[in-house]
Amino acid sequence: MKVCKFGGTSVASAQQIKKVANIIHSDSSRKIIVVSAPGKRHSDDTKVTDLLILLAEKALIGQDAESELQQVLARYEEIAEELGLDGSMNTVIEKDLRERLSLDKEDPILFMDSLKASGEDNNAKLIAAYLQSIGMEATYVCPKEGGLLVNERPQRVQALPEGEELLAELRNRRGIIVFPGFFGYTKDGTLRTFNRGGSDITGSLLAAATGAELYENFTDVDSVFSANPNVVEQPCAIHTMTYREMRELSYAGFTVFHEEALRPAFLRSIPVCIKNTNNPSARGTMIVKERECGSQPVVGIAADDGFSTLFVDKYLMNVEIGFGRRLLQILEDEEIPFEHTPSGIDNMSVIIRDTFLTEEKEARILHRVKEDLDADDVYFRRDYSMVVLVGERMRDTTGLTARAATAIAKTGASIQMINQGSTEVSLVFGIHKKDETDVLRSLYDEFFQTAIARV
Amino acid sequence: MKVCKFGGTSVASAQQIKKVANIIHSDSSRKIIVVSAPGKRHSDDTKVTDLLILLAEKALIGQDAESELQQVLARYEEIAEELGLDGSMNTVIEKDLRERLSLDKEDPILFMDSLKASGEDNNAKLIAAYLQSIGMEATYVCPKEGGLLVNERPQRVQALPEGEELLAELRNRRGIIVFPGFFGYTKDGTLRTFNRGGSDITGSLLAAATGAELYENFTDVDSVFSANPNVVEQPCAIHTMTYREMRELSYAGFTVFHEEALRPAFLRSIPVCIKNTNNPSARGTMIVKERECGSQPVVGIAADDGFSTLFVDKYLMNVEIGFGRRLLQILEDEEIPFEHTPSGIDNMSVIIRDTFLTEEKEARILHRVKEDLDADDVYFRRDYSMVVLVGERMRDTTGLTARAATAIAKTGASIQMINQGSTEVSLVFGIHKKDETDVLRSLYDEFFQTAIARV
Repeated sequence: MKVCKFGGTSVASAQQIKKVANIIHSDSSRKIIVVSAPGKRHSDDTKVTDLLILLAEKALIGQDAESELQQVLARYEEIAEELGLDGSMNTVIEKDLRERLSLDKEDPILFMDSLKASGEDNNAKLIAAYLQSIGMEATYVCPKEGGLLVNERPQRVQALPEGEELLAELRNRRGIIVFPGFFGYTKDGTLRTFNRGGSDITGSLLAAATGAELYENFTDVDSVFSANPNVVEQPCAIHTMTYREMRELSYAGFTVFHEEALRPAFLRSIPVCIKNTNNPSARGTMIVKERECGSQPVVGIAADDGFSTLFVDKYLMNVEIGFGRRLLQILEDEEIPFEHTPSGIDNMSVIIRDTFLTEEKEARILHRVKEDLDADDVYFRRDYSMVVLVGERMRDTTGLTARAATAIAKTGASIQMINQGSTEVSLVFGIHKKDETDVLRSLYDEFFQTAIARV
Repeated sequence: MKVCKFGGTSVASAQQIKKVANIIHSDSSRKIIVVSAPGKRHSDDTKVTDLLILLAEKALIGQDAESELQQVLARYEEIAEELGLDGSMNTVIEKDLRERLSLDKEDPILFMDSLKASGEDNNAKLIAAYLQSIGMEATYVCPKEGGLLVNERPQRVQALPEGEELLAELRNRRGIIVFPGFFGYTKDGTLRTFNRGGSDITGSLLAAATGAELYENFTDVDSVFSANPNVVEQPCAIHTMTYREMRELSYAGFTVFHEEALRPAFLRSIPVCIKNTNNPSARGTMIVKERECGSQPVVGIAADDGFSTLFVDKYLMNVEIGFGRRLLQILEDEEIPFEHTPSGIDNMSVIIRDTFLTEEKEARILHRVKEDLDADDVYFRRDYSMVVLVGERMRDTTGLTARAATAIAKTGASIQMINQGSTEVSLVFGIHKKDETDVLRSLYDEFFQTAIARV
């Protein structure tokens, strides 16, 4: 039994939904179908989720939101009509949205959650109706009834294990289950949404709970690529990678499949396959626990900008037991996680994602490091990028660091930081943001173009 | 005015002490002379300090130590006789040693300190007498009278700033001051010794307190070498280096001049010159605040073994704020300083000098990391060496990491850890101990032989 998740572009139009139906029809083991809200049909289009956010914002400030509501309804109406459905689904969706708009607005976040989640929820109802209309046994299942339990606010939304037993039952239901992605319910029945892109999480949770043989994640690309196709021309496809490799790459900037979504599948060792709705016969990318590693040590190269470095100098820091720990305590007091902490004899630096920094936090950190830790010098520097090479076989490969460093040197860029040692799966170079594109291309040439040329 | 320190081999025999007298005589600015105890005269010889330790150990366990005492006295007698001194100095030294042996043994560490320190103390008296005998105006100054104040036990021995004013007065005394190295006195008059090799510290303290124009440290080598001459054949001499470069090299295994001894001179910007008693016209190595950096980015390559790595794995460590800080806290509770902490998405490792680890500490650390931090996996691995490239201009040099990593790859060794980023002065590679010699030679070839060939 497989769990299949279809992303926004896969369910953006009647034409796309027909492809989805064909995909489901072609493999009887595709039983649990998780769907997103209708996404963009073309690059200038607006996602239904974005229309819903506009609608909710208008409603929250008490303005008339009828035109925004009509825009949302129009998207579904168009899809339903092209799918040959009668008008009853339109009535269901309009009633649902008007009910949500009349909900209590005291907690604007919960109100927003409810409106946003309607995108997936109504699309699931619509797709279930379409599958029925073409003769398939398909049922829409609401996450509340299905058992997708989440924790309470203000905690960061996460699924609760208590729901798993009920979710596992989905496996035994007759026919195809159409399940909306992106949201769950607290024990007292309050709707909460996952982070954006959270339909991937729903699919992964369902695959884990039902013990699926495979979690198929349908997107609009044939596979995960070994480098960002916007930077490197026609990068190689990755056919198989491990969970660790995917996590390292997604953490370092690959947006294909977020590590949070990978987690439930990883914990139950459910293989994940990234596939293309528009080209379902393409092999896709399998994400598995272990893989055969060929001669190619690097599976992918990721780059991410938006890093700052906190530099701290203090003479004889090396003989001061506890200095590093106290520096990290100051960051922890500001709720700032750190990425890397290269240290020297008299100095230590901490690399931090800019998103965790504010002017106030920076000022407090500088003050405390100077005063509490009696540092000789402390300052922030900005505009760093981290470039990460990922591959299970990397550390066994003698000369890999030399090749990478040489490829970087060729561009004229200087290496600001290297983190190698803890994991066997990745090698991180800190560089100036301005050098990112050149470095990424040069590393790609070294590890992929050369490799291909050698074959 | 210069402060000159003469190490153990420089004052090991009458012949050597005559060289010292010539060196002092040849430059009237050499005013303050710090001397060690007589060292080895040849490779099979025993240092007077080691004879004194044997003597003190015998005395401490209540055994007859007359033969050990006679061995010590014989060394001084031979020197005095060959220097043409009359027997009065022998009487002084014997009386002094018998007095020390009769001291209270309740605190065996202080008793040991007093016996060990006699090596420098009596040698200073003897050398002062010899200088007088050849017509020089020279006075022995006892550190208690001179003002070398140190802190109380059980603190690690360190000079106290309160003594500095008195020490500074040495500058204004007539003639040459002969000052024994290696020890000072607490405020209540208790003798305490610095760490072994502590005569370098005495010299540095005196140079700093008196504001000397130069601190000359006489040893038995023409200069500091760019790599260990026991590993690399005829390594280049370093003519000038900065305090930072010297500190990084000594921290990483260069034993020529310990960082603790460098500290007082560094803090007052007193230049230090390492010179050879047996070849005083050789240029030596100057250690200064700033230096002209030529085209050569690396000034020296050091290697040190005896490192272990603590590996910690925990799934989703990256989203757990405070994990790194809590791991370092556990090490701090065991009073263990750390060298480097490379970290990955789900793991962190800490590189530690073996000298700080015991079986009990390791067991407690493993238990706490597992229990308190709920780690998935935690273990130690042993037998790492750290190889350090040092040079002020290293970070400005594009491609340096590539050259170093390529030189390491050539040996077939795999790089286990890299620390680059915090300091601009060093680049650290962690390797397996078995690869150390090959890696050091290959790096030397890359950065020194090639450089010479290019000139």
